[in-house]
Amino acid sequence: MRYSGLLGKTLREEPHGIRSPSYALLLKGGYIRQLGQGLFAFLPLGLRVLRNLQRIITEEMQALGGQEIYAPVVTPAEIWRRSGRRDWIRELIRFQDRGGRELVLSPTHEEAFVEVVRATLSSYRDLPQLLYQFQIKFRDEERTKDGLSRTKEIYMHDGYSFHRSYHELNNFFPKLFKAFRRIFERCGIQTFAAEAGVGYIGGEKSFEFLMPAAGGDHALIRCGKCQYAASKEVAIGGKEYLRGEMLPLEKVATPGCGTIEALAQFLDLPRSRLAKSLLYLTPRGPVLAVVRADFEVAPEKISAFLKVPVYGLAGDRELAEAGLTAGSLSPIGLPPGLRLVVDDAVARSANLVYGANQAGFHYRNGNFGRDFESPDVADISLTRGQRICLQCGGTLEEIQAVEVGHIFKLGDYYTRAMNLAFQDDHGRAAYPQMGCWGIGLGRLMDAVAWANRDERGLAWPEALAPFRAYLMSIGQSLAVKKAAEELAAELGEEVLFDDREDSPGVKFKDADLLGIPLRLVVSTKHLAEGLVEVQERRTGRVSLLPAAQAVRAVQDLAGAKPALGSRT
Amino acid sequence: MRYSGLLGKTLREEPHGIRSPSYALLLKGGYIRQLGQGLFAFLPLGLRVLRNLQRIITEEMQALGGQEIYAPVVTPAEIWRRSGRRDWIRELIRFQDRGGRELVLSPTHEEAFVEVVRATLSSYRDLPQLLYQFQIKFRDEERTKDGLSRTKEIYMHDGYSFHRSYHELNNFFPKLFKAFRRIFERCGIQTFAAEAGVGYIGGEKSFEFLMPAAGGDHALIRCGKCQYAASKEVAIGGKEYLRGEMLPLEKVATPGCGTIEALAQFLDLPRSRLAKSLLYLTPRGPVLAVVRADFEVAPEKISAFLKVPVYGLAGDRELAEAGLTAGSLSPIGLPPGLRLVVDDAVARSANLVYGANQAGFHYRNGNFGRDFESPDVADISLTRGQRICLQCGGTLEEIQAVEVGHIFKLGDYYTRAMNLAFQDDHGRAAYPQMGCWGIGLGRLMDAVAWANRDERGLAWPEALAPFRAYLMSIGQSLAVKKAAEELAAELGEEVLFDDREDSPGVKFKDADLLGIPLRLVVSTKHLAEGLVEVQERRTGRVSLLPAAQAVRAVQDLAGAKPALGSRT
Repeated sequence: MRYSGLLGKTLREEPHGIRSPSYALLLKGGYIRQLGQGLFAFLPLGLRVLRNLQRIITEEMQALGGQEIYAPVVTPAEIWRRSGRRDWIRELIRFQDRGGRELVLSPTHEEAFVEVVRATLSSYRDLPQLLYQFQIKFRDEERTKDGLSRTKEIYMHDGYSFHRSYHELNNFFPKLFKAFRRIFERCGIQTFAAEAGVGYIGGEKSFEFLMPAAGGDHALIRCGKCQYAASKEVAIGGKEYLRGEMLPLEKVATPGCGTIEALAQFLDLPRSRLAKSLLYLTPRGPVLAVVRADFEVAPEKISAFLKVPVYGLAGDRELAEAGLTAGSLSPIGLPPGLRLVVDDAVARSANLVYGANQAGFHYRNGNFGRDFESPDVADISLTRGQRICLQCGGTLEEIQAVEVGHIFKLGDYYTRAMNLAFQDDHGRAAYPQMGCWGIGLGRLMDAVAWANRDERGLAWPEALAPFRAYLMSIGQSLAVKKAAEELAAELGEEVLFDDREDSPGVKFKDADLLGIPLRLVVSTKHLAEGLVEVQERRTGRVSLLPAAQAVRAVQDLAGAKPALGSRT
Repeated sequence: MRYSGLLGKTLREEPHGIRSPSYALLLKGGYIRQLGQGLFAFLPLGLRVLRNLQRIITEEMQALGGQEIYAPVVTPAEIWRRSGRRDWIRELIRFQDRGGRELVLSPTHEEAFVEVVRATLSSYRDLPQLLYQFQIKFRDEERTKDGLSRTKEIYMHDGYSFHRSYHELNNFFPKLFKAFRRIFERCGIQTFAAEAGVGYIGGEKSFEFLMPAAGGDHALIRCGKCQYAASKEVAIGGKEYLRGEMLPLEKVATPGCGTIEALAQFLDLPRSRLAKSLLYLTPRGPVLAVVRADFEVAPEKISAFLKVPVYGLAGDRELAEAGLTAGSLSPIGLPPGLRLVVDDAVARSANLVYGANQAGFHYRNGNFGRDFESPDVADISLTRGQRICLQCGGTLEEIQAVEVGHIFKLGDYYTRAMNLAFQDDHGRAAYPQMGCWGIGLGRLMDAVAWANRDERGLAWPEALAPFRAYLMSIGQSLAVKKAAEELAAELGEEVLFDDREDSPGVKFKDADLLGIPLRLVVSTKHLAEGLVEVQERRTGRVSLLPAAQAVRAVQDLAGAKPALGSRT
């Protein structure tokens, strides 16, 4: 490929207002282009990286025994109604077609895969099934961010497995885990696997693959001493309980104290002496969650504990319906029938301040077990750094990370809700146990760029680079130009030949920015000795090689393969 | 791949209510599955055919110098506003995101590619650009049809080229034409290229690649004698004019004659003696079209003649606004300022019946040139079979066909409307001249299945088959089973190994239905002589070969290559 004909040249100017260094480099190098908020085009260089990612993932999925299929991105709303997710995924776009049929622009594909499997599943002999695809998702994210790291349209690899039993799903999971590790290793990034929340995908357990990165939009809690790591939303850590003699409950006027901040100031108490109550909505009705005010609620933990999705916070209407008073919510004097979940730090701390379900009033010296009660006590608060690791007593730290992959144990939630059954080996009806997983290819490309760069630009791993080699010549000598043309012809599709009339300085700079593994330079000086300069982008190591050997060096590059379809 | 583990088995029962034989076979063979109206999943077998189509198209596009990119399927409505297409493409779905931004689920990608090119185009040196992608389109079709032949979600190959001049676009066009021919040849289908309408894609000229097929939803007009062929909507043919002495214009009462049928009966005249006037909407205002009542209007011809898109027929409101009377529209006494296009058969026929723009009245003996006049006389009516070929005098025939590809000369319509300019070699601003093209991969798969089948099932061309060989064994002999397992292991990814316990009869039937090029059978009888039975699906030719030679026969199959990513 000649650089002069390539769509998407390097930009001379620094793109404006961009914080993410990987995004800036992908823009500057001409890999991607923004078309709208969270909507990106992949230019030829970016597309070739994408196809290389696709090849690596395909190879690992095939090795796992996966079968590739295609499920449409537009799906009937009816199947989302059956799973119960039609109404509460905020990122889900619905629309009507001309015939008045309601359709969904799918943010994920659990429902579609259940429907695809339905027609072909009858007996246990048809299981397990490991299915995957490369397909678009559309997620109407509230905030998109930093280029490819959170987009609305996502070109995604996603997979869905169907098993005869939970035991079989459990046996499959470590294999999937290993395949994910291999994928990220082959992409040249280091990841942590960490337990994570399940969000609207649901199910019982999930693991995220996170790449530590300053500025990453995920928080990872990690122990400095042992192997413990978890996504912040589900991480656990030691808590300090506030013990003490129980004092008498006392109602106090707290005029104008609508916030925790105001209340702490008014009562002259630290936040740790106050309880905070929040009402969350779930498909089984509202749930009042109580944590100590020096913590934040972790909805993912409530969801895991109650085994229902948590949709979000209640609004004024739902508060009124539940018989609660905004600004003074309380587990003390709880309206009958309302479900209550209490954080363990609240249950084990004495004499906290609670709301009174009465505007302008609170209770002092409230005590769990005496003033209110619930069977549902659990860890439902967010863990922060500087807490104690429950596994080894070490200190937890919070680091920023980028999520590059996510695997889920879904169990039988979807198959049961959507009534996809099979006959087990005893002739009884059973629901397949599902696993699922996903890798956003744009986000992964961004992470690879983040991890493989230096102050001069990108430095792609060989397996992902859009070309194996970048070729240029120096000077106006016809012999040099001819030698460069010959090299280009010999290397064919594997080389990006910079045939512009620009100065060597401009070309060196662009070669560094583009980050192609080998840079070949033909110059008068070395051509006289029959040599070509070959420089490795990642190490900077320079060799002078005869042309034939330079060609071999390019062809021998370990992982690099041309993209889909370029081989005939 | 073992058949027992494959997702999507053959169906034992004939699918209900399906007319298209190719659709029925794809369903029965387990290649595809319907998820909703016009929404299909490709199961593993179908996906492998799809990937093979993608490989062939990719190879031809690369040979043409094309560069693959990815433009998002969801695009900002703003760019559709700039091109002027936001409001009148009926198949286009619009929706709002959370932030209130209007987005489009793209039915085609001209606008997006103009935007992608914009940022990278400055001088004529950046042209030409040949760009393509494989990307989803969503078209809210009024009627979907016959499985893959007209779907709402379309997995499509589409390309867009940008040229310095119309001359350059013209030089590129024959190359594109040839690449399309090669693609369809390699897919094992015979196509006619025929001039066609441009529809909402617009531009100046287009050619469809049509495969003649009973039940196909396209009509192709073809000369039985010469090479002339065109899509019915733009085909031209000889017309018989009704000459005669001009008689005096006469207004007659035609009570209750709201239709041509009623009018012809009331006046006791053949339809050819009546003129029919219809009001069409265009971006430059309404246009009254007049044809003889024995013809139908061809909106595509009006569009080509006036060089504006024709949106569709006017409703009552627009008729009233134009000052016309429904049921009696007429070019005689035309309200001032209304544009009039007259079919040449009307202009050259004497003494026709016209409306009178007055309910319950018509004119007899209307004559173009005397009673009304227009500078815009053209062929704007549909040609039917049994007419004379204007090129050779032969007889035209109308045949049913399936459209499998479409190429367009767009000219500078989009680049001008969206103001994408470059500096030409004289330093002047100029608009790139565009070409574009598209192939729906599902529709192509359906056409290939249609053309490559017999009464027993599918018979894929080698280059497209999901596997090169189908392998089975007969009987319970352990030696036979072992030999089959060994063959399967040796052939690896290239064979579909039917390891089911079913009878040979069931397997033979399924092998025929699936249509994989070679069927390998291991049986006690032949194994004793060290031979394997190899049958060609398309010819039925049987050979008995030693195992090693059978393996070679599979590996030597001409075009067949494994699908994306299955090669390591």
